[in-house]
Amino acid sequence: MTTNNKNNFCVIMGGGIGSRFWPFSRKTLPKQFLDFFGTGRSLLQQTFDRFKKIIPVENILVVTNDMYASLIKEQLPELSSEQILLEPTRRNTAPCIAWAAYHIQAINPDASMVVAPSDHLILKEDEFLDTVQKGLEFVANDDKLLTLGIKPNRPETGYGYIQIAEQTGDNFYKVKTFTEKPELELAQVFVESGEFYWNSGLFMWNVKSILKAGEQLLPELAAKLSAGIGVYGTPQEKRFIDENFPACPNVSIDFGIMEKADNVYVSLGDFGWSDLGTWRSLYELAPKDADRNVTLKCDSLFYNSKGNIVAMPKGKLAVIDGLEGFLVAESDNVLLICKKDSEHAMRKFVNDAQIKMGEDYI
Amino acid sequence: MTTNNKNNFCVIMGGGIGSRFWPFSRKTLPKQFLDFFGTGRSLLQQTFDRFKKIIPVENILVVTNDMYASLIKEQLPELSSEQILLEPTRRNTAPCIAWAAYHIQAINPDASMVVAPSDHLILKEDEFLDTVQKGLEFVANDDKLLTLGIKPNRPETGYGYIQIAEQTGDNFYKVKTFTEKPELELAQVFVESGEFYWNSGLFMWNVKSILKAGEQLLPELAAKLSAGIGVYGTPQEKRFIDENFPACPNVSIDFGIMEKADNVYVSLGDFGWSDLGTWRSLYELAPKDADRNVTLKCDSLFYNSKGNIVAMPKGKLAVIDGLEGFLVAESDNVLLICKKDSEHAMRKFVNDAQIKMGEDYI
Repeated sequence: MTTNNKNNFCVIMGGGIGSRFWPFSRKTLPKQFLDFFGTGRSLLQQTFDRFKKIIPVENILVVTNDMYASLIKEQLPELSSEQILLEPTRRNTAPCIAWAAYHIQAINPDASMVVAPSDHLILKEDEFLDTVQKGLEFVANDDKLLTLGIKPNRPETGYGYIQIAEQTGDNFYKVKTFTEKPELELAQVFVESGEFYWNSGLFMWNVKSILKAGEQLLPELAAKLSAGIGVYGTPQEKRFIDENFPACPNVSIDFGIMEKADNVYVSLGDFGWSDLGTWRSLYELAPKDADRNVTLKCDSLFYNSKGNIVAMPKGKLAVIDGLEGFLVAESDNVLLICKKDSEHAMRKFVNDAQIKMGEDYI
Repeated sequence: MTTNNKNNFCVIMGGGIGSRFWPFSRKTLPKQFLDFFGTGRSLLQQTFDRFKKIIPVENILVVTNDMYASLIKEQLPELSSEQILLEPTRRNTAPCIAWAAYHIQAINPDASMVVAPSDHLILKEDEFLDTVQKGLEFVANDDKLLTLGIKPNRPETGYGYIQIAEQTGDNFYKVKTFTEKPELELAQVFVESGEFYWNSGLFMWNVKSILKAGEQLLPELAAKLSAGIGVYGTPQEKRFIDENFPACPNVSIDFGIMEKADNVYVSLGDFGWSDLGTWRSLYELAPKDADRNVTLKCDSLFYNSKGNIVAMPKGKLAVIDGLEGFLVAESDNVLLICKKDSEHAMRKFVNDAQIKMGEDYI
């Protein structure tokens, strides 16, 4: 693997405030900044470490929210200020990616880019990076929008799926459809068919192609941000964004472009990938004791207990007797105990906690 | 109520290290020093506040272990150093009470004394104090050992029982038998009989009588401690105790004297009393929400949860979904989650925690 290609850029999206790991993740310290498995590196840092093996470090950008600026600088001191794009307000992925594309275009109009979430887990790194490198070659000189599809190993209902059409190259396929998170029965049909792959939320394209697609499919967004051509990459860029970004439409790149464009391709792989979207997904991936209990960061003593996941700060001891299938998560001023499949209720917990206790508790 | 009688002394036993409220109570901060209900006063302080209404403050003594000296001084600044008797090592109640009796005898050979645990709850204070005052009058000039019996309101298996014999005065009865904690069936028979009362562990007698009983029934103990007559109440007392107390036999006042003496009486009452011996007893006494959940000190949000007791430090929020009949207790570096009736396992939890994590966790 080489980092020689100066045309290759990486955009890490690190602005999420996902509350699904509350209270372990907090508004002031979201998931991407946490080191769930005690490896010494947060998910964001792991993402950065991964891409810098194939992308020149100076070509790696992080797009995040203003409020996480200092956290990003603390966790990724290798980045210069110019490599951190700070959104003044939370929009969706399309405005975030469009801004990054205009920014990169100003630096290098011949650039290709890989866009990646900052909070996913990838266990088979070599295979992953090889696929990304081949993907960047695939899109470098062609007007193609490429996404990464993950070979499903179970009928997961928490992911979107990509249906593949005809093969157009070694491991590249045209995309037939994108589908939302399916019900279990449909998910089973998807997996058995061999035609459906998990949507990883990871994309590759050259800058010209994505900006062209934006002009055609999201003209309102393109109009807002193309007005800044000339200031991107200059000291005036941040002020332009602060003034114009809040007016951009709130739309995802999947809905706004990928599902509508006709030049969308998918590259397939099996990378030991997880979006770590829920406590349950974290549970599935983590090492388990003989009774299938998972302990993250803290210490634990289990009695008559099976299939639990416990996450507390380092140095704390959890003594648990008679629990089955529960999540026990504690951080700072909040302790949460619930069934580990009650992900749907998490938003309610967080809302109620905020109403009862205030901002300091979410 | 008056505190005029200079012959009346109170001995508060405050040396226990009970682990039954672990991790809420810790070896360095046992139950008697805790304010379970958030009233602003610990159980020890409540005990002191109660007795100072009928006993001259200078006649109130606390017997405790060396290691709690600073905690006692912090919580009861009204006490002079001479009023705090510091045991160099943990023995049982008989040596503790015998020392206190010799100490009081040196100050006032005509004294009577009430001996009380430091960690019990009493809700009906006036009735209690009235009974104690009458009890102190009852024993002042007679060779009688008096204990307090509590009218049982349920077939509690966690308490010892006192069977009464013939009445010998207004609310005073001869004691027929002391019994250990009974099985449930027997406890039900006890309660229905009307002859059995809970053993409160609270005693009254004059100093001469208890010392005489000790000489007769616990001669080894009496020999050890009577050797110090002449140094009690002097600056040499502490050194004498440090040298001789560790050699005293480890025996309870119940087993060593009350169950064997033939001049034992009981005074009956219903004082809203609890020895707060278990999380369950604390649960029974505490205010409950509509789903019978109890929250001590912290804040809580319950969903689909019934009959739980949650105790965490002030300022913490517990969010609990799907638990029934559990104890959730957290303090410092330990979180305990178990069925609230698994009191029997508490000692195992504490032992295992110590083995796995060390002294700082118990």
